[in-house]
Amino acid sequence: MTAPLSYADVEAAAAVIAGVAHRTPVLTSRRLDEEVGASVLLKAEHLQRVGAFKFRGAYTALSALDAASRRAGVVAYSSGNHAQAVALAARELGIPATIVMPHDAPQLKVEATQGYGARVVRYDRYTQDREQIGADLAAESGATVVPPYDHPHVIAGQGTAVKELVEDAGPLDVLVTPLGGGGLLSGSILAARELSPGVRIYGVEPAAGDDARRSLQEGRIVHIETPVTIADGAQTQHLGELTFPILASGVEEVVTATDAELVQAMRLVAGTLKQVVEPTGVLGLAGLRSGAVPVRPGERVGVVLTGGNVDVRRYAELLGE
Amino acid sequence: MTAPLSYADVEAAAAVIAGVAHRTPVLTSRRLDEEVGASVLLKAEHLQRVGAFKFRGAYTALSALDAASRRAGVVAYSSGNHAQAVALAARELGIPATIVMPHDAPQLKVEATQGYGARVVRYDRYTQDREQIGADLAAESGATVVPPYDHPHVIAGQGTAVKELVEDAGPLDVLVTPLGGGGLLSGSILAARELSPGVRIYGVEPAAGDDARRSLQEGRIVHIETPVTIADGAQTQHLGELTFPILASGVEEVVTATDAELVQAMRLVAGTLKQVVEPTGVLGLAGLRSGAVPVRPGERVGVVLTGGNVDVRRYAELLGE
Repeated sequence: MTAPLSYADVEAAAAVIAGVAHRTPVLTSRRLDEEVGASVLLKAEHLQRVGAFKFRGAYTALSALDAASRRAGVVAYSSGNHAQAVALAARELGIPATIVMPHDAPQLKVEATQGYGARVVRYDRYTQDREQIGADLAAESGATVVPPYDHPHVIAGQGTAVKELVEDAGPLDVLVTPLGGGGLLSGSILAARELSPGVRIYGVEPAAGDDARRSLQEGRIVHIETPVTIADGAQTQHLGELTFPILASGVEEVVTATDAELVQAMRLVAGTLKQVVEPTGVLGLAGLRSGAVPVRPGERVGVVLTGGNVDVRRYAELLGE
Repeated sequence: MTAPLSYADVEAAAAVIAGVAHRTPVLTSRRLDEEVGASVLLKAEHLQRVGAFKFRGAYTALSALDAASRRAGVVAYSSGNHAQAVALAARELGIPATIVMPHDAPQLKVEATQGYGARVVRYDRYTQDREQIGADLAAESGATVVPPYDHPHVIAGQGTAVKELVEDAGPLDVLVTPLGGGGLLSGSILAARELSPGVRIYGVEPAAGDDARRSLQEGRIVHIETPVTIADGAQTQHLGELTFPILASGVEEVVTATDAELVQAMRLVAGTLKQVVEPTGVLGLAGLRSGAVPVRPGERVGVVLTGGNVDVRRYAELLGE
C-alpha cells in the first residue's frame, strides 16, 4: 500500500476478516429516535470479538505479513483494546505476539491478553518509554510493531464496520464515530463516502483532549498531554500521519463530549438498549445527543458503538454516580 | 381452549405474534461455555419489546378477545413487566387498558406504563387487595382481567420464545428457565417437548421462595408469603391451576438460586456478553452456573434470559456490591 488509501482497501480487508470477525448487529431504539428526532442506527462493535472494533484492524494487519515476518512475530504496546485485538489475531494466525503493558495496567486486562496466548512485557509508565521498549523488542527479534491506528491495514480493517453498517441498514445521511487516533474514523470515511455518497461525517473526541478538533482548525497535527477522561480508549495525544489528511478531507467537523455526557449516554444504552458499552464506546452517541452533531428531523444517522470493555465494578461506579 | 394445552397452542400463538413481537437473538459466549463445560445458548428476551418475554403472552391473550371484549377493555394488576406488556399489547390492538399498580411502584414504571397509553390506578399494597380492585374495575366496566401467568393464551404465548430458540439454535439436551408463577416454564415445556424430544427441563426459582419446588415434592400447590429477593419478577406466592400440572409432568426438577448467585450471573452477563439483564432474568443462568442444574460435558443447553428492566441506579448498586 503506497498509493493513498481507498475504498478498495476496505473491501480487501472485508474479504480478509470474513468468517473470522463477527458481523455485528445494528441496534435501534424507538426511545432514542424520539429523543434525537432522527432514525439512529447503532453498529454494535462492543459485540465484536475481544469486545471492540479493534479486532478488525489488527487481524487485517497481521494477515498482510509474509511468512518470514509471521515467524518473527509481532509487538504491540497498549493497555487497551488494541492489545487484546493483536493478541487474539496473532493466536488465530499462529503468530507469536508480545504486548508491552504498563505495570499498573488492570490485572484483568493483563490476564485477558495472556489468555489469548500473548507474552506480556511490563514497563513503568513514569520512567520508561513504551515506544522505545516496543522498538527495542522488535529490533532484537525482528518482530513487526503493529501500531494502534496509524497504519494502512489497520485503517482499512476498521473501515469494515461502517461498510457492514451501510450494507445492512441502508444509506446514511449522517455518520458519527468516536475519535482517538483516527483509525476508525479514517476507515469509516473511506467506506461511507463510497457506499453512501453525500453522507456528512463527524468524529467525537473527549472534551478533555480536543487535539483532533484543533488539528483540523490549525491545519497541522496538534500534540497534547495525555488527557484526563473516562474515555480511556481515546486518550491519544495526536492524530497520525495517515489519519490526519483523511480526516481533514473527510469530516464535516470534529466535536467533543464531556465525561458527564458519556455517563449519561452509557445510562441510556444500559436502560433502553440493555447494552454495556464502555465510556469511549459512547462518544459518538453522546455527541449526537448533546446536539454537538447537527441532525435534521427524520434523517438516518449511523453511530458506531466501539467497545464494551470496562471493568464491571468500574462500570457500576460510573452508572451509579 | 378447553382441551389441555398443547404445542398446537404455541404454534397458534407464534402466528399471532409474528411481525409484532421481536424474534430475539440467541447469544453465546466462549467463556461461559468453558466455565460450564457445555454449549450454552441464551435466548435474549431482555431484547424483546417492553424489555421482557411477557409481551408474547400479553399480546397473544389480547388478540384472542372478541370485538365486544376489546371495546370493554382489559385490566391487569402488576408492578412489573406484565403490566407494561399488557399496556403495549393493548395499544397495538387499540384496546383500552387499566393497570392496577401499588402506590410505591417506581415512578419510572408508572410513567412507562402510562407512556404506552394505559390508565394507571394506584392502590395501597398494605391495606388494599389488588385482585379485588382489579375484579371490581372489571365488574364495573365489563373489562377482561388478564392474569400474569395462569391463563391458556398467556402460557401459549410465552412458549413461543423456546420455539424460536430451538428453531434458530437447534435441538437441546437441557433447557433452563426462570420460574415465578410458571407461565414461561409451562409454555417452554409445551414447545421443547415437541421440538426437542428427550430434552431435560429445569426451572429455577429464588431460594427465598421455593414454593414451586415444594409444590412438586408435595404434589399440591404450596402457598408462601411474598419472598424477599432481588428477583422481583419471581416474587410469586404460588403456582397456578394451569401451570402446576404442566410443570409436574414436564420438568426434571425445580432448583433455586440465591440473590448472591443472581448478582454473580448479572456480572458475568455484563462483563462477558455486554448485556444488561435484570435479577429475575438471570435465574436460569445462575442455576446452571451453580451446578444446581446438572449438565454433562458438551451438552447443548438452552437458557432463557427473561428480561432487562431494572432501574439503572439499582443495577449499578447490585453490580457494585
